Formats: sequence, structure tokens, C-alpha cells
Amino acid sequence: MYKAHDVQIADVPDATLHNPTDALIRVARACICGSDLWPYNDGPNVSGQQMGHEAIGVVEAVGSDVRTVKQGQVVVMPFAYSDGTCMFCGDGLQTSCVHGGFFGQGTEIGGAQAEALCIPYADGTLYPLPVGEDDALMPSLLTLADVMGTGHHAARAARVAPGDSVAVIGDGAVGLCGVIAAKRLGAEQIIIMGRHEDRIALARELGATDVVRERGEEANERVRALTGGFGAHAVLECVGTGQSIGTSTAIVRPGGGIGRVGVPHYDTIPAAQATFYQNVSVAGGPAPVRAYIDELLPDIMEGRIEPGRVFDRTVDLDGVPDGYRAMNDRKALKVMVRP
Amino acid sequence: MYKAHDVQIADVPDATLHNPTDALIRVARACICGSDLWPYNDGPNVSGQQMGHEAIGVVEAVGSDVRTVKQGQVVVMPFAYSDGTCMFCGDGLQTSCVHGGFFGQGTEIGGAQAEALCIPYADGTLYPLPVGEDDALMPSLLTLADVMGTGHHAARAARVAPGDSVAVIGDGAVGLCGVIAAKRLGAEQIIIMGRHEDRIALARELGATDVVRERGEEANERVRALTGGFGAHAVLECVGTGQSIGTSTAIVRPGGGIGRVGVPHYDTIPAAQATFYQNVSVAGGPAPVRAYIDELLPDIMEGRIEPGRVFDRTVDLDGVPDGYRAMNDRKALKVMVRP
Repeated sequence: MYKAHDVQIADVPDATLHNPTDALIRVARACICGSDLWPYNDGPNVSGQQMGHEAIGVVEAVGSDVRTVKQGQVVVMPFAYSDGTCMFCGDGLQTSCVHGGFFGQGTEIGGAQAEALCIPYADGTLYPLPVGEDDALMPSLLTLADVMGTGHHAARAARVAPGDSVAVIGDGAVGLCGVIAAKRLGAEQIIIMGRHEDRIALARELGATDVVRERGEEANERVRALTGGFGAHAVLECVGTGQSIGTSTAIVRPGGGIGRVGVPHYDTIPAAQATFYQNVSVAGGPAPVRAYIDELLPDIMEGRIEPGRVFDRTVDLDGVPDGYRAMNDRKALKVMVRP
Repeated sequence: MYKAHDVQIADVPDATLHNPTDALIRVARACICGSDLWPYNDGPNVSGQQMGHEAIGVVEAVGSDVRTVKQGQVVVMPFAYSDGTCMFCGDGLQTSCVHGGFFGQGTEIGGAQAEALCIPYADGTLYPLPVGEDDALMPSLLTLADVMGTGHHAARAARVAPGDSVAVIGDGAVGLCGVIAAKRLGAEQIIIMGRHEDRIALARELGATDVVRERGEEANERVRALTGGFGAHAVLECVGTGQSIGTSTAIVRPGGGIGRVGVPHYDTIPAAQATFYQNVSVAGGPAPVRAYIDELLPDIMEGRIEPGRVFDRTVDLDGVPDGYRAMNDRKALKVMVRP
């Protein structure tokens, strides 16, 4: 990505191993993420930023200190790399790893919208899968790299429990995975807040029981009306704007939780007094998706959840610029990249 | 309280039963609360506001629909009244009871800095104690009406767990009870942040392991230095100013929790991006102290915790105005009232 609205496919030096803990993967599947649209519209961190932070790859080579990851394995590449050994990784918070960082952010670490990529701390970062690279479950497995784990994180952070009323703000891929996660955790009522009819239809198939298309105070009133006047037990904030965090604080019930996973484009959390008097908790952040694979993988393998349904377009590398345009114009929900 | 800095003892009509679910208590012990100093300095809600929201009383009479509370019982009066039957009471969040409210707030509900008081929803509000009104444990039992339950709530909201590093912001009675609560929940390191030497000395006796007297960025650096550079797992925000919530966000470690119990005199929670990227949770509010008595009472009865040590002055009703002055001038930590 060179500047706002300017994504190009460029030849770059071949990915190689740099450190003995690295692995080299050939990218089998990658994605364009809703969060990639922020730099697509605002401009990247650096001109020529290598994009992409979600992938399934095939391990081509490993460094001399790599112990568990093997050549030939099919692996999930979570959007954050992590050493797997620090205190935070031990606590299942790989996104705060003391040696960690994020793919596709314009640092010396590359992006996954590419043919190949060097993976730091391969043992701590990559998660081997029990399938071949052409398995029919590949779309759903690919969501373990980000959106399904992120939707699950929103639900966990908002403390979704069986029987709950849950409101999901945002009908993008993460919001839809939030619907799946809320249903999976036993929510009884799942209110999707969005206004794209195709996405709303998919949300209903994935478990949403109610739809709120309004915005602002009208939306708040609709959610309260749908929840017996009390608001939702759990709000999954999957957008990241000042308006969406404001809505979150307005529609949560006393004692409820807000789970933030939309990258925040706001500086303060509003309604500090209302959330206090109502004992509302606000939690969330970049999802430690690596930690959630153990829990989510069996449900994908056994067909209980199908987060791969969020993909509605597939492109090759040359199609990536078109993929950005389609997602930015809301003509595609989520784009899969097959290099 | 008539206006800022003007507290007087006044003759008012005798407290009587209004509804069949009421009880009438004679106040055996009451308190002046740190939160009473906000209206003491800023002015009360109404002139002639009846103050006081913490008490132990003796039940003098009960309405015809009162079932569990009996005449002659010694009872804790939590700072909030609650019906005991609504959804929120059932969830242990009595401070959000649909029929509930707060004592001593200038509403038609009176205050406990008085000889007697009418208690709404007696069965849901009052908690009978297994002691007489002159028991030696009375100071500690009195803290179940607010400050010990509130300190415990801060620790729960901040998710204090065994082995944790905990920072307690504020060396008032709630902060000191937060120290007790953190120790009780197994914290290994308890950092008290305050600058009153007598209170800090008491905090050390109650379990604080470290003291930070600095403020601002200096304080943040000290806490980080004391916690291996990472910050505290749990921060107990027991003050309620913009500065103290800002400090909370600066000294909490990734994945940590902030428990807010200081009545917020700020409108937004700062550092919305830093707390996001660090997966910090912010929770808390008015403590449902009624729900915590079951858990805390045995530890008081068996001497494992002594929250009554926060009282350093006792006054009769005529001494209440002096009690406010002493607390406001920081000459008393917490004042007990014996009408």
C-alpha cells in the first residue's frame, strides 16, 4: 500500500529466514481485513507498506531453533506473532507478548497478502492444522487467524453467558463472527445492529434473532425495547468509532459488559458516570486469537460453527487491489486471497 | 446539611413506617463517609438534606408484609436499599434494584446520621447480625454497610487473583479496605498510593507491601519500577478524580483490570486506545455490599479481617458537624457516630 486508495502488487525480495526461531511459510490463503480499510482510507504507516495479517500457510523451512513446527505442515498464522514463552503468552495474552508484534503493519515484519512470509518465533506463533491445504474447511479455518477469534474475544470480554441478551454492533466479518460466538456461548437473544441487508440476512442464518437498522438514539431505544427496557447483558463493539462506543454505553444493562474489538478511533470512553452507576464493565482489545484456537478448532472441524461463510469473494494476488475496492465500497463482505 | 460546610443537628418528624414492607430501625452506629465530603464541599442536593448511608440498627417495628426481619434484631443497613426480589437483586447487583435507591441522598428517604430511620423493603435491604449491639466487633461489622464491601467490590471488579500485584489508589477508608480485600483474595504485592503518613502506616499493618507517595508521572514510574516494569495486575481506584482514573490507566499492566469505586467526578475514561491495545478491563461502580455480607461476615466474626480499624474517631449526634470538619481537614480518617 503506497498511499490512501493505492494498493499495488509489487515484486519484493524473497522472504527468507532471519533468525533461528523463524519459519518460512508459503501463503496458501490470506485475507483482506476490515481493519485494512483504515489505512486504505487514511494512508498507510509507510509508503510501500506490506499488507495482510491473516493467513494459512505451508511451512517451507524452519530455523535451527524451531522445535515444534515442521516443514510441510499446514499452519494458521495469527495476526500477531508471539514468542510463546513470556509471562503474557503464558497467560494466553499473546497480543501483549514482550517480543511480539503484528503482521502487515509497516514494520520490518512483512504482510500476508503475498506469496511467502517469514514468521518470527514460529513455535510460539504458528498453529499446525490437522488438514491439507485444499480441505473444504479452509475458509472457516482461515478465520482462526483473526475474525473468528476476534468475535469470540468480543464475546468473552463482554462476558456472554447462557441465556443472555447480546447486542452486536457492526455487521462486518467480525460482527458476524461475534454473532457466531455469542450463539456458541449460549446467548438466547442476539441483536445485530447494522444496515446492509445481505449481511443482516447472513447474521440471521448464523444466529441473530433480532435486527436493529436504526442509528443514534433511535437505535438505543429499539434495543431497550427489545430487551424488556433493560438493555443487553453484553454488547460486542465491532466497529471502533466514537459513535459505536457511545452506542455501546447506551444499550448495555446494569451489570452488563462491553467487549471492544473494533480498533478504536476515539480517545476516551464516554459515559464514565453512567457506566459507573450501572456497574458496567468495559474490556477487550486485540484478540489473542492464538490462545483461542484450541477451543474453536474442534467446533470448526466438526461443523458446529461455519465462520468461513463470511467470505463472499476470492481473488488471486493480482486481484487484491480490486478486493480492497470491493470491501471499501461494501460490495464485498470479506475477501479471501489465494496467491 | 444545609449548604457547603454547613452541617447541623436538627429536630425532624419522628421516623415512621410508610409501607407494609418497611421496617423502623433505631440507629445504633452510623458513619460519616468519604463520599459525604463531596456534598460537604460542593453543596448538598437539597438544603436540609438528611445525611448518612451506613448504619447498624436495632429493629423497632416492622410493616405487615415484612417476613424475615424481626423486631429486636441487630441489622446492617447497606448504603443502598433494595427489594431483594427483582432480577438485579437476584444477580447480586442490589445497587441496580428496580425499586431501589440510596440513603442520605436528599430524596424522601432519610439518612442514618440520626436516631432512627425508616427502611424501605426491609427484607431485601437489612441483613441480621448474630451479635448484640454492644459487641466488640461492632466497628468492623459496621464497615459491611459500605467501606469494606466497597473495597471488596473494587478488588473483585479489578479481578484480583492469588499472587497478583495490586495497586490501591487512595488511602481513605475505602482504599484501606481495598488493601484488606486484596490481601484476603491472595494478592502478593499490595502497593498503597497515598501521602498521609498515619494512613500509610495503617495500610502497612493491614497488608500493604509497598508505598508510593509520588503523584503524576513520577508515581506511574514508581509503580512500574515496583512491578518489574509491567504495571499492576489490578488497580483499585478509590478516589474518583480525573487524575486518579488517569493514573489507573497508566499503571495497569496488559491484561490487567481497573476496579472503580471512587464516585467519578470525571466524564470520560481516558486512554481509550492504550487500554484497548493492552486489553485492560475497566469495571466497578456502587458496590452491592448487601451481596457481599455472606462472604465477608465470617472473616470478621472469626477475626481474620479487622476493617473496623479504619475508624479513628467516635462522636455522638451533636458531634457530627465536628466529625465532618475533622474528616474534611484530614484530621480523622473515618468517623463513627453513636447517636
